[in-house]
Amino acid sequence: MSKATFSSNGYSADAAIAFARSRPNTYLSELYDFLRIPSVSTRPEHVDDIKAAADWLAANMETAGLENIRIFPTTGHPLVYSDWLHAGDDKPTVLFYGHYDVQPADDLDLWKTPPFEPQVRKDNIYARGASDDKGQLLMLVKAVEALLRANGALPVNVKFIVEGEEESGGHGLKDFIPEHVDRLSADIAFISDTSMATWDQPAIVYGLRGMCSVNIDVVGPKLDVHSGVYGGGINNPINALVHILSQLIDADGHILIPGFYDDVLPLEAEERERINAFPFDEEAWLQRILVTESWGVPEYTTLERTGARPTLDVNGIIGGYTGDGAKTIIPSKAHAKVSMRLVPNQNPHDILKKITQYIETLTPAGVQVKLTPMGASPASIMDYHIPAMKAAEAACRAVFGRNPVYAREGGSIPIAGQIKRDLGIETILLGFGLPHDRIHAPNERFYLPNYYRGIETIIHFLVNYAGINARRPVAG
Amino acid sequence: MSKATFSSNGYSADAAIAFARSRPNTYLSELYDFLRIPSVSTRPEHVDDIKAAADWLAANMETAGLENIRIFPTTGHPLVYSDWLHAGDDKPTVLFYGHYDVQPADDLDLWKTPPFEPQVRKDNIYARGASDDKGQLLMLVKAVEALLRANGALPVNVKFIVEGEEESGGHGLKDFIPEHVDRLSADIAFISDTSMATWDQPAIVYGLRGMCSVNIDVVGPKLDVHSGVYGGGINNPINALVHILSQLIDADGHILIPGFYDDVLPLEAEERERINAFPFDEEAWLQRILVTESWGVPEYTTLERTGARPTLDVNGIIGGYTGDGAKTIIPSKAHAKVSMRLVPNQNPHDILKKITQYIETLTPAGVQVKLTPMGASPASIMDYHIPAMKAAEAACRAVFGRNPVYAREGGSIPIAGQIKRDLGIETILLGFGLPHDRIHAPNERFYLPNYYRGIETIIHFLVNYAGINARRPVAG
Repeated sequence: MSKATFSSNGYSADAAIAFARSRPNTYLSELYDFLRIPSVSTRPEHVDDIKAAADWLAANMETAGLENIRIFPTTGHPLVYSDWLHAGDDKPTVLFYGHYDVQPADDLDLWKTPPFEPQVRKDNIYARGASDDKGQLLMLVKAVEALLRANGALPVNVKFIVEGEEESGGHGLKDFIPEHVDRLSADIAFISDTSMATWDQPAIVYGLRGMCSVNIDVVGPKLDVHSGVYGGGINNPINALVHILSQLIDADGHILIPGFYDDVLPLEAEERERINAFPFDEEAWLQRILVTESWGVPEYTTLERTGARPTLDVNGIIGGYTGDGAKTIIPSKAHAKVSMRLVPNQNPHDILKKITQYIETLTPAGVQVKLTPMGASPASIMDYHIPAMKAAEAACRAVFGRNPVYAREGGSIPIAGQIKRDLGIETILLGFGLPHDRIHAPNERFYLPNYYRGIETIIHFLVNYAGINARRPVAG
Repeated sequence: MSKATFSSNGYSADAAIAFARSRPNTYLSELYDFLRIPSVSTRPEHVDDIKAAADWLAANMETAGLENIRIFPTTGHPLVYSDWLHAGDDKPTVLFYGHYDVQPADDLDLWKTPPFEPQVRKDNIYARGASDDKGQLLMLVKAVEALLRANGALPVNVKFIVEGEEESGGHGLKDFIPEHVDRLSADIAFISDTSMATWDQPAIVYGLRGMCSVNIDVVGPKLDVHSGVYGGGINNPINALVHILSQLIDADGHILIPGFYDDVLPLEAEERERINAFPFDEEAWLQRILVTESWGVPEYTTLERTGARPTLDVNGIIGGYTGDGAKTIIPSKAHAKVSMRLVPNQNPHDILKKITQYIETLTPAGVQVKLTPMGASPASIMDYHIPAMKAAEAACRAVFGRNPVYAREGGSIPIAGQIKRDLGIETILLGFGLPHDRIHAPNERFYLPNYYRGIETIIHFLVNYAGINARRPVAG
């Protein structure tokens, strides 16, 4: 495919790239500022930080030349919207999505430098949110800024919608989209919140897992009681919880909830081949986190299991005495957090119903079991034959010298599924993180050379995309 | 049995009882002082409090008129020894045992008044250690004091050995006894660390469960990792721990460790009858802790299961994210504390070996499992036909107007088994706690009228015991 295919009325990426390359320190210093805000969305004590992060982003968008900047309150944390819509009616519109909230940063002791005091070590910037998603979100804004500053205009129309509840499973954006379909209407959505295959091999994610998560609380005696006096006479909430959890998934990884696999779209031979062709060094992948061997249902490979098959994990558990030494009690209560990664075509609400009914059947005598739904989002699969994907492929070639690989990823970006459903468009998931960025873990980092390459790739994408006939027919 | 049976050269309990009855406020104020010392043996930060409690007790013994007071250091917390040996060679010797350490007091929020600021409400004194065992230990010292002050001498010889590691499973006393057999030699041991059947029905415990406890640590990735990226690819330490724990005991309470029941002494029909004749209101027992129904192996009654059958309880569990909301991680590690109550003739070291070997067979791929032994002590059964028991029975009749019932209790007092083994004597377990004293739980309490009745009962016991021919033949 020749470069000319993507020329757009003589609009060129070159000036914007030159502008971006002249400002590495500014872009880094802005990233520092953004990362310093501890916008942890799951913790009530960070509500002011969440607001500060939204305000910071809005101000940065304004400096970049974006317009109509609005902060929309929601039932949870606010949304940040902006746009630039002067490319002309004949030009397509790109809807950028990102999230300005971050995961909690505990266990603090395990961080080499504090999570909200960014530090650069060996080409990586270390901070909570560096890769997921503040660093990648800022790339999008900086690409638009470079194009606007260098050319005075963008080759396409753009809209941004950025949320602050991605990590907390909030409903703000979910409720907002169907109520603002016109405001958000576009021809393609673009998200940078995923990983490359390796540091120099870009990847477009075309499949994402969904999620269904629940908290399980088991309550027994009204207070912790002596295990000598009551042991054998009353049920133990931890014992009971352990029995419930052990019947959700077997030791090999098969999920035991009745009907759980009913709607799972089988992996076709062609797809399995493509998944397993992804460059993947399993030994290095395990070694990086000091795990000696992989694990999971033996019928599938590790790439299949982590990308295209459903899973169930206990994310946290607590009950009884957890201090030093021993305390011989039967605890009053026990608590577990369980999340399931879903694949097409599992319906997360159906799965929630199934696990709820199943756990009712597992509840033993003498304890109360309460299940609290914590989040539900479907998996998604994109059509990667559309022209916008070709524009993204060419952008990757221009910057990295090679085509992206197409991957199904194990994480969940619920918004991608909703964009397809509510706005009727596909999403390009082209991210510039690396598989070992330690997102959600201590010492999260982002490989800085790809922060800059990412900005350039997005500049190329916008220019390329303007040159193809991607404008959807206006609805009659 | 007439009172005369127990007259001992004209030595009478009356003067001592009168003395004790003249000092209720002193005895209460001393109990307050003892309870104010937070001598939590499992917590390193309380090491000075442990020392302070030992010192306080030694000083109180001195005031009481006890002699040869020594504080023996151990590998853990110190032992407090004292004696009074002037009753004559023809008089028997009683070895009193107690412990001055207490359980941890968390969860502090659940205490109506702070655990180390004793408060009297409706005839109960509330504080950690009030019933287990400071209140009951102090009764022993006060009984001796009353006899010495009122009569200038004791009717029998007495020795005290008091430890500070009962709640922490320390080895100090365990190692001390075989090295100090002469120092501790006696004709009978006497412990007040158990409960009455009801507030006016004393009970002598003739069977105690033993204990084997372990900590289980499961380690997976070196840090918490993203459950979307790694889910289905690596084993989850919580999932693995849950599978291990679920295979230790079934949902009905049957313990699944191979060979666990091999050495359990079957309950004879006569013993089952005696156990089930114990005054027990199961509904009230459950209602007190807001549990709706009892639970356990269906082959045995609640009294049998709590007193005379082995159990396995997870006392505590922790792993992964346990804060508010959700965090979709696969945790680096998970931890559980497991304790088993043992019955005659289970060997705790054999049980430890069996659980260790069994857990090795349960260890799944991709995680490391570490088992740490935390304590092991055998169950014990006393001979309740010996003369000393008759002296205790008569003491109960004198104070409570009725004979004690004989009970097997579910808790563990490892020392009773060791006294039999190393010193060759039986132990009288006559305690004055109540079944709902909330030992090991928030709002522990001790029913004060029985603090005073307990002192009087022990006074009667010592006088009665002097009058019977209980002196063992001198060896060699």
